[in-house]
Amino acid sequence: MERRSILKGAGLGLLAAGATLAGAPAIAKGIKQWRMQMTWRKNSPLLSTGPQIVADYINKASNGRLELKLYAAGDLVSPFEVMDAVADGTLHMGHGYPAYWSGKQPSVQFFSPIPFGLTSQEQNAWLHYGGGQALADKVYGQLGVKFLPSGNTSVQAAGWYNKELNSINDFKGLKIRSSGIGAQVLTEIGGVPVQMPLGDVPQGLQSGVIDGADFVGPYNDMAFGLHKVAKYYYWPGWMEPSAVLDCFINQDAWNSLDKDLQEIVTGANAMANQMVLSEFVTKNAQAVKVLKEEQNVDFRLLDDPTLKHLGKVSQQVIQGVADTDSLTREVYASLSSFMSTVRPYTELSEMRFLDARAQLLL
Amino acid sequence: MERRSILKGAGLGLLAAGATLAGAPAIAKGIKQWRMQMTWRKNSPLLSTGPQIVADYINKASNGRLELKLYAAGDLVSPFEVMDAVADGTLHMGHGYPAYWSGKQPSVQFFSPIPFGLTSQEQNAWLHYGGGQALADKVYGQLGVKFLPSGNTSVQAAGWYNKELNSINDFKGLKIRSSGIGAQVLTEIGGVPVQMPLGDVPQGLQSGVIDGADFVGPYNDMAFGLHKVAKYYYWPGWMEPSAVLDCFINQDAWNSLDKDLQEIVTGANAMANQMVLSEFVTKNAQAVKVLKEEQNVDFRLLDDPTLKHLGKVSQQVIQGVADTDSLTREVYASLSSFMSTVRPYTELSEMRFLDARAQLLL
Repeated sequence: MERRSILKGAGLGLLAAGATLAGAPAIAKGIKQWRMQMTWRKNSPLLSTGPQIVADYINKASNGRLELKLYAAGDLVSPFEVMDAVADGTLHMGHGYPAYWSGKQPSVQFFSPIPFGLTSQEQNAWLHYGGGQALADKVYGQLGVKFLPSGNTSVQAAGWYNKELNSINDFKGLKIRSSGIGAQVLTEIGGVPVQMPLGDVPQGLQSGVIDGADFVGPYNDMAFGLHKVAKYYYWPGWMEPSAVLDCFINQDAWNSLDKDLQEIVTGANAMANQMVLSEFVTKNAQAVKVLKEEQNVDFRLLDDPTLKHLGKVSQQVIQGVADTDSLTREVYASLSSFMSTVRPYTELSEMRFLDARAQLLL
Repeated sequence: MERRSILKGAGLGLLAAGATLAGAPAIAKGIKQWRMQMTWRKNSPLLSTGPQIVADYINKASNGRLELKLYAAGDLVSPFEVMDAVADGTLHMGHGYPAYWSGKQPSVQFFSPIPFGLTSQEQNAWLHYGGGQALADKVYGQLGVKFLPSGNTSVQAAGWYNKELNSINDFKGLKIRSSGIGAQVLTEIGGVPVQMPLGDVPQGLQSGVIDGADFVGPYNDMAFGLHKVAKYYYWPGWMEPSAVLDCFINQDAWNSLDKDLQEIVTGANAMANQMVLSEFVTKNAQAVKVLKEEQNVDFRLLDDPTLKHLGKVSQQVIQGVADTDSLTREVYASLSSFMSTVRPYTELSEMRFLDARAQLLL
């Protein structure tokens, strides 16, 4: 069955009936009842934290004036239909990952991670003070929705592999679960990107259908048992140095909100944005400890020549993506300009500090 | 005049009269009118951003049910009296820096930066998911206030110097504007810490009263013209790898808030916490560019043996601070345990990524 037949037919009938039954007195009291669906499954580790925080905050801070009911992947529509459902008003809000919508609007790719791109701290700085939010509103506005950053994964891993990666040539012929711009880079260096849902990855690695997988990060990877089906855990995550999770709101629904409720929705996402990053950092750190000390995982680092080669190829691929259309070029120009300004500062401050601290036996 | 005589006498009379005049109809409508004073001056670059965001958000999101009037340093009480004024209910909220209150409660020092301690991202993770918030509530609870993190400066600079620092011995005899745990470390290596308000530092450097100054970061330092009165700008900021700014709320006032208003105050500070960090990163990056390209500032790096020596001495000094009393020991035990877990993860992810990216000419 297609989404529209479910929602506009019997399914929506149920929803509409429910809304009418509960909604009439609610509307009389000026109460709005909204539906939000995430692209994540219920209780998906770290990823469902943000939408839950958003829903809880809105329900509490609005004192019930905006009642937000949270649905998980598949509850009302399938995960990749969430954007359409929000745009056409079937849902009021959605939660996902910018690159999921690149088929509809290529420029969203630059709100998702790009190889050797911005860290989480830099990405937030670009969104908040570097012009990123205004561009996101323009880009997501073309999809019919309002954008708010709503979580961040921090630096991800380079991936799990059953073959050693001692040079750039070792990627040749490897079947690697990956997506987005990183997958394009892998193609350029002779790898074979494979599209595969997260849930199929453990079996894929075990059976040899794939030789490697770009997954998420230590906590999620361990939850899926990847350390039991792959030999090497490669770092650093050159493909995804930071990943913004997106909250998007039907544009008319957003415009219809009283100013105070708009503030509350914005505040809810500010809270999700910082809490999700903090949870990723904390749980990933705990997972690395377990993977090292209890699971004896073989952590490997890509060597400098390999990383340099990946960097050069990435730059070409990114330029190709940027040239897709004028809006994509506009977003990349802003991102790229911000990056050239922020990099020397980050290297002087954060990087030099981390390098110094790593030398100590504190 | 003392604060109490101003506020409990004529000054408070004025405030109270004003509150009565405006307050009677307000209270009848269930409107709360609160006073918040920051320890920062009005329009203080980057530092007054957080309190302003908090006030604006609360006023808008509460739709005027909680009216928060923001005062700057000295408006009602002097900066260092803000905590007492909040604790005794003269003010409802304050905004400052944890270490300012170390004379009243030594354990607050571990919510301020410690040498070679946590980065901003790690510090937030500790507060949000590592037990830090609960400990802060305990510590600030002893001062009679509720704590919320409300901004972060990111990694600071090591400071401006008019003498070269080519080895640990070069610190000997230097008069250096500094405070907190960093100042104690400087004493241990033969330096002479000098307490001096920010506003006196440019003249102090120019006249030779001080040889160096630990200030804030590129944007603030440039605003004060330090690049015109000091020869060398030293990095990395081993003393202050991250600085949380604190919002504190009179405990009874906090307890008296309806649950939805508590959420709104919490959301306001979540917003300030992420926006202030983003503004520091963005404006500091722009300032580094100007200092390098237009002001030809001589950026210097402390060398590895110097940093290692500073690290060893820091560890001893920090242990001494931790042993002040049982609550301080408890806070340090949590911080220290979190740090030992998060460091290997940060080094594997953020640090390795930054090191790799720095090698590329993107």
